[in-house]
Amino acid sequence: MPVYKAPTRDTRFVINEVLNLEQYAALPGFENATADMIDVVVEECGKFCSEVLAPLNLSGDQEGCTRHPDGSVTTPKGFKQAHAQFREAGWGTLSAPEEFGGQGMPHVLGMVAEEFTASANQAWGMYPGLTAGAISSILVKGSAEQQAKYLPKMIANEWLGTMNLTEPHCGTDLGLIRTRAVPQADGSYAITGTKIFISAGEHDLTENIIHLVLAKTPDAPDSTKGISLFIVPKVMVNDDGSLGVRNAVSCGSIEHKMGIHANSTCVMNYDGATGYLVGEENKGLAAMFIMMNAARLGVGIQGLSQAEAAYQNAVKYAQERRQGRALTGAAEPGEKADTLFVHPDIRRMLMDAKAYTEGMRALCLWGALQVDLVHKATAEEDRQMADDLVSLLTPVIKGYGTDKGFDTCVNMQQVFGGHGFIEEWGMSQFVRDCRITQIYEGANGVQAMDLVGRKLAQNGGRAVQALFALVDQECAEAKSKPELEKLAGQVEKANGDLKAATMWFMQNGMTNPNHVGAGAHHYMHMMGIVALGLMWLRMGEVAVAKLAAGTEDKAFYEAKLVTARYYGERFTPDAGALRRKLETGADALMALPVEAFATA
Amino acid sequence: MPVYKAPTRDTRFVINEVLNLEQYAALPGFENATADMIDVVVEECGKFCSEVLAPLNLSGDQEGCTRHPDGSVTTPKGFKQAHAQFREAGWGTLSAPEEFGGQGMPHVLGMVAEEFTASANQAWGMYPGLTAGAISSILVKGSAEQQAKYLPKMIANEWLGTMNLTEPHCGTDLGLIRTRAVPQADGSYAITGTKIFISAGEHDLTENIIHLVLAKTPDAPDSTKGISLFIVPKVMVNDDGSLGVRNAVSCGSIEHKMGIHANSTCVMNYDGATGYLVGEENKGLAAMFIMMNAARLGVGIQGLSQAEAAYQNAVKYAQERRQGRALTGAAEPGEKADTLFVHPDIRRMLMDAKAYTEGMRALCLWGALQVDLVHKATAEEDRQMADDLVSLLTPVIKGYGTDKGFDTCVNMQQVFGGHGFIEEWGMSQFVRDCRITQIYEGANGVQAMDLVGRKLAQNGGRAVQALFALVDQECAEAKSKPELEKLAGQVEKANGDLKAATMWFMQNGMTNPNHVGAGAHHYMHMMGIVALGLMWLRMGEVAVAKLAAGTEDKAFYEAKLVTARYYGERFTPDAGALRRKLETGADALMALPVEAFATA
Repeated sequence: MPVYKAPTRDTRFVINEVLNLEQYAALPGFENATADMIDVVVEECGKFCSEVLAPLNLSGDQEGCTRHPDGSVTTPKGFKQAHAQFREAGWGTLSAPEEFGGQGMPHVLGMVAEEFTASANQAWGMYPGLTAGAISSILVKGSAEQQAKYLPKMIANEWLGTMNLTEPHCGTDLGLIRTRAVPQADGSYAITGTKIFISAGEHDLTENIIHLVLAKTPDAPDSTKGISLFIVPKVMVNDDGSLGVRNAVSCGSIEHKMGIHANSTCVMNYDGATGYLVGEENKGLAAMFIMMNAARLGVGIQGLSQAEAAYQNAVKYAQERRQGRALTGAAEPGEKADTLFVHPDIRRMLMDAKAYTEGMRALCLWGALQVDLVHKATAEEDRQMADDLVSLLTPVIKGYGTDKGFDTCVNMQQVFGGHGFIEEWGMSQFVRDCRITQIYEGANGVQAMDLVGRKLAQNGGRAVQALFALVDQECAEAKSKPELEKLAGQVEKANGDLKAATMWFMQNGMTNPNHVGAGAHHYMHMMGIVALGLMWLRMGEVAVAKLAAGTEDKAFYEAKLVTARYYGERFTPDAGALRRKLETGADALMALPVEAFATA
Repeated sequence: MPVYKAPTRDTRFVINEVLNLEQYAALPGFENATADMIDVVVEECGKFCSEVLAPLNLSGDQEGCTRHPDGSVTTPKGFKQAHAQFREAGWGTLSAPEEFGGQGMPHVLGMVAEEFTASANQAWGMYPGLTAGAISSILVKGSAEQQAKYLPKMIANEWLGTMNLTEPHCGTDLGLIRTRAVPQADGSYAITGTKIFISAGEHDLTENIIHLVLAKTPDAPDSTKGISLFIVPKVMVNDDGSLGVRNAVSCGSIEHKMGIHANSTCVMNYDGATGYLVGEENKGLAAMFIMMNAARLGVGIQGLSQAEAAYQNAVKYAQERRQGRALTGAAEPGEKADTLFVHPDIRRMLMDAKAYTEGMRALCLWGALQVDLVHKATAEEDRQMADDLVSLLTPVIKGYGTDKGFDTCVNMQQVFGGHGFIEEWGMSQFVRDCRITQIYEGANGVQAMDLVGRKLAQNGGRAVQALFALVDQECAEAKSKPELEKLAGQVEKANGDLKAATMWFMQNGMTNPNHVGAGAHHYMHMMGIVALGLMWLRMGEVAVAKLAAGTEDKAFYEAKLVTARYYGERFTPDAGALRRKLETGADALMALPVEAFATA
């Protein structure tokens, strides 16, 4: 059975040493986030995920969810008990506001919990994960009454939540949705329509489920400007908070999917179900985007989470499996063969995974910190900078992060050879589960268009210019240290390629926007390479300082410097190749008539 | 349900126009392979695969194979009937020698049949596919008696065959195998041991199965120099060809795999089974490599086959699914949304797939032609050249071909958005089935080491020098044509990077062979980029000539030129990045102690 141990040492390194969270102690919510407190939270949360959730991952995949003729859904064995334990321990309330029963801790710590739960059991983690998205919409757009009625129970994970966007004929293009919301005399709406791909749409973990549903009111414009957001509880909630009658919403079927078998992906039928408008009519998309942005960071960390779990198992296998001899001569002549670890191509895959997972962890937690700073930084300038950077990099964290996460899972499966293809080893599951992260919450091509079509140009390019300046400045600083000089040059070069690509878009996008669309995905990957490069520079800086000051944990920091070097050597060269591809534009790419794609 | 239509037009283009098979009409076996004859074979074979095999693909995946308590295995519904039809039509005998009942056609046509069957139904295609590997070993190393006894039935597909190499503790490192072969008084051997991952090890398609098994005789050296190859029939064959008693070999279980569910992957138990030595004792590995080399080309084309099938379905979906608007303004204002085809990022994935599949098809069929020429070319020089090139490029076709084939399947699944993740659409199956091609018949890391550790240095580097010269020469020629000038420059540059990487290996591998191992995988991909570039130049040459001469099929050749241009723009830049990574060597890659890979 696959193993998982939460990477708490690395997480503490990022939070305490790289992000240096204690420097924000004066900000609300940060006062309790001392290094000691963080260590406790990280270790305990890791323990829970490793010990309670991880053992249910493979069995959950094999058993899957079961829909019964009455529309109810049973989750795999152990899921309900694990959820009860999770709820009791309060792992779902870490960064929720104290006002509604949360612990009010920094979002950074909530992100840690998201990584660990998803690594241990992605399908399980999605149940509370989607709830967090639903909570954020109600927090920002819900009325005081709605907040009081739903948030405490949802934050306590007593009720879980869902997001209902997709319909059979539309996913990305939400302007096409057909679900109707007809106003009723009592101020509520009657919701009718079919939603598909609803993760956690029905299950047995909680006695109620709060659905957030996009629908159109009768006279709404026939576009994304005519979408409204509604709360539709599975079971009606009385004014005293007790549960009332069953609402007219039900699970019509559950999907047979490539992965995340243990999460019930439902077709949800709304048959005149009672719904309550969240925020203003026709402003539902904006409310949904609040949920989506948080969710996209969460999906990015899911990409990391599967890669991390797969990596841990590949490392273990490479240590145990003996096959062949080192190219430099037998490493262990007393054994019949050396371990896989001696083979450079196995090392290449493991080092790729190490450089990606550690870099991506730093980037995700840094991103979560920006979310905190958007709301809590004292200076307007700091809040704006944080907002600019996290808005810009959210599609990168989601798109680049999950693309590389998936590639990493595939490579870790490859370490196992034929055994990687056998389900019992669990490596197939990491690949299959990770695959969805590239698709949901906006497929990665949509992320790329969000980046180049929206985020780049916002406020006259202020965010991307800020990123360029930040990277250049930190490269210049790092160059003074012999250990980091080379990496700094490589990241600076990648940043230069990114600047050039940005300029190319500006020069060519005006005449033909397809030139931008044709390079969007490449651009997203280039920015990912630069962003991870920045993280490796920062981790390198900490390592240099620790080693200079003398530390008991010398091996840890030395490994950081080696991995930073490896990142520079093996990740940054792609930026140049991506730029050259991007600069070829859309001409050949868009030239062929559709008929030319028929091969028969 | 997914669709598949054999790409017969493109196949005929490669065989008749690019390879120009008629030029070899004077060679044995080629005399009947006229353009007319090839057209008939290609079209009919394609029809059979599209109409008979493809409809069984999704259902076969869902049903899988069933092992019964008596060790017998039932294949999915329809598989047995399809095999009977395949056998009757003679699709398995195309390129087998006439002496044993084959049709003696060029290997090129056998390769076409392999592509089409695998595209239509990879799991099904493996039953006859592995038989072809077993046949080639017996053809080269079997005694006349063995050939007479087994080959006619195997070539007729009346009996199928298997390859038994892997054991629980060893896959790549065959020196570790433990299966024993004890000589018996009658000249046979008693075979005892356990083999795992035996594709088509047991099934209900034929009344007999001929296992080819690697085992060690009692006094054999404890290394790969002590391995012998044996024929072990499932049912003993009497001297008159009739079937006798059941041999002591049985299927102990079938594996639960990520993909190719419809192919029975067996644990095979040999309990003193009667086996017959093929060739000499202790020379089994050489005999197995005959089988392996043929099989590796076949696996390369499997990578292509899944990409092609996935591509066809993505093209269809992109034409039908409407979502969003073209960046340049609504393409079809009368519709509520444009088709996916208008979106540059969808185009990028489809064009990537088109450039890969068409290039890879040319490379595979070119490779198959070299196999023919090794045996049949008149001049010794031509035979040697063909042998050099196909030996060099076999690991590239297998390794690079399946890596890119898998990436293509993943991208084609991505075109479907959320629907790609739902099993009923069939896109998940292409990804899951294709995944094994990167693993079996030598994982792609092993292919990379075969390339750089064995093939590069053979005969003083004669083969790779021949490839360099060939590419440079054809680039120089193509440069005179305005339509190909740019592509020729790009391929020449990639070839230059490949030369430089080769030189770097020579300069650095002597001091530390890990420098070569650390770059092996990158090198394999670089050579793949150059090889596909060569194919695109050749296809471009044909297109230029046809268009200049005037042709009714103008759109076909114009599309070739656009796709050739796209290949140059979007595939060749990676060669430079791979070279830069490769030239960083093994220092950082091998530096960390194993303990540094523990993340917890």
